[in-house]
Amino acid sequence: MSAATSSVVEPVETQETTIRSATREVVIGHDRPFCIIGERINPTGRRIFQEALRAGDMSAIERDVKAQVEGGADVLDCNMGVPLMDEADLLAKAITMIQGLTDLPICIDSSVVEALDAGLSAYQGRALVNSITAEDERMEQILPLVKKYDAAVIALPNDEDEIPMEPEKRLELVEKIVRVATQEYGIALNDIVIDPLAMPIGADTATAVATMETMRGIRERWGLNMTCGASNVSFGMPSRHALNATFLPMAMTAGLTSAIMDARTPQVVEAVKAADLLLGHDDWGMAWISRHRASTAAAAQA
Amino acid sequence: MSAATSSVVEPVETQETTIRSATREVVIGHDRPFCIIGERINPTGRRIFQEALRAGDMSAIERDVKAQVEGGADVLDCNMGVPLMDEADLLAKAITMIQGLTDLPICIDSSVVEALDAGLSAYQGRALVNSITAEDERMEQILPLVKKYDAAVIALPNDEDEIPMEPEKRLELVEKIVRVATQEYGIALNDIVIDPLAMPIGADTATAVATMETMRGIRERWGLNMTCGASNVSFGMPSRHALNATFLPMAMTAGLTSAIMDARTPQVVEAVKAADLLLGHDDWGMAWISRHRASTAAAAQA
Repeated sequence: MSAATSSVVEPVETQETTIRSATREVVIGHDRPFCIIGERINPTGRRIFQEALRAGDMSAIERDVKAQVEGGADVLDCNMGVPLMDEADLLAKAITMIQGLTDLPICIDSSVVEALDAGLSAYQGRALVNSITAEDERMEQILPLVKKYDAAVIALPNDEDEIPMEPEKRLELVEKIVRVATQEYGIALNDIVIDPLAMPIGADTATAVATMETMRGIRERWGLNMTCGASNVSFGMPSRHALNATFLPMAMTAGLTSAIMDARTPQVVEAVKAADLLLGHDDWGMAWISRHRASTAAAAQA
Repeated sequence: MSAATSSVVEPVETQETTIRSATREVVIGHDRPFCIIGERINPTGRRIFQEALRAGDMSAIERDVKAQVEGGADVLDCNMGVPLMDEADLLAKAITMIQGLTDLPICIDSSVVEALDAGLSAYQGRALVNSITAEDERMEQILPLVKKYDAAVIALPNDEDEIPMEPEKRLELVEKIVRVATQEYGIALNDIVIDPLAMPIGADTATAVATMETMRGIRERWGLNMTCGASNVSFGMPSRHALNATFLPMAMTAGLTSAIMDARTPQVVEAVKAADLLLGHDDWGMAWISRHRASTAAAAQA
């Protein structure tokens, strides 16, 4: 059997991405359990949360952190984009606050360079930065920060011109990102995590297959870790949890090793844990069986 | 991108397997929606059903057919193995009865050659025969029946010596089955449906990956249709439905085009329908949206 046909298992060499808080290390990798990046600490589209933050009330963050941790998040994504507020200041404060609440590592998420800088400066540990694209300006602005703070970085294969639909074009943009990040900025290959761009299936029913082909190509050529916004694929469709819970295990067979997702949705978290077991990343099924015991015990108490 | 890396979509040439009842045709194929073979019409392990059959009461079949059809089965598996009963007579009667209840095609399931012969003789249409293995004796006994009755056949890659765990050894047995069936018995390639043997993950956590590798190899080399006993993989584990609902979509990315499964389990049927959509086999998501509307309407009525 060729390397390509046996790629369900592993490619020639796969990368491991290490991030950490002050006291806890998380390694993302193709031979490891899937990494759940809890996505809820984000005021985008949440009016009440935004108003609270404007009033200086950060208590919603506490609830969100608790819910994501309880749901099984391994890492927490933190975005503090609120219109007309100083995002750099807010993000630094939020990160300090979160690190007082949990020892999970943080994925620092912003489109604003100054905010990323402030967040990275406030962060204790080795962060994951969300995100760069293949746009020259974005790489020029953010990769020096990634290097300076010794972080890992999420990169999206789109550029100034387009979000290409064809897997081969996305792989060309990954090639560019890898070349620039490693050769021009000295970022290690295993610190680049690709988000291959999961688009809504409702807009184009060929998109999930294209994304999975892109993933397979990325794993086979570079062995890179990957992540994606897990709920994008179901946008606009009914029964979104069921679609997300089906998409992630399929994508995991193609090389997806983490996702930015809401850990409060048991159906999707359970699907990821089932896929870990089926991919041989849950020795003796201990995590699966423990999860079942915990939910049975919780149900008995309720 | 090589043919291998793009195999999420399709291999060089894939096969379509056509079966039919007197009035309905079902085509199993890699570019089509997944084929659900309802598995419940089987007294194995069901003491009350067995006793009823011994007493000449076949009414349980009626209930099982109704439940499988309502659950979304495309084909019905029928097995009438009851210890100390004349299986040939019983299977022929059951098939005639089922064909009076539904127009779904039937998968005629027996380990007894005489029963398969009687079942095929009673059947109106083009049946799927379940099953042969790579054992010489089994092929010699059953393939002439498959040819005589112009049926399709499910084949398992195990032989007299073993059920091999290594994908490459399973593919060697598929090679043997394909060679013997096509060259010695004149069976068409597209009438061979391989069951690549999904084994319990609880016994060996590497088994699902091995099965998926086998599937990928079968699709790439022959483009054959495949089926499997969907619930085998979760045998002995807790939360079996969640495991089955995760396994099938993962296997579908590797080339699984049908499964022998209990259509009464909405969680597993829903996962298969979600995977159809994500694989581009549900144009405009119409089936997915219709399913959601129907379940919403049913919930409103309840």
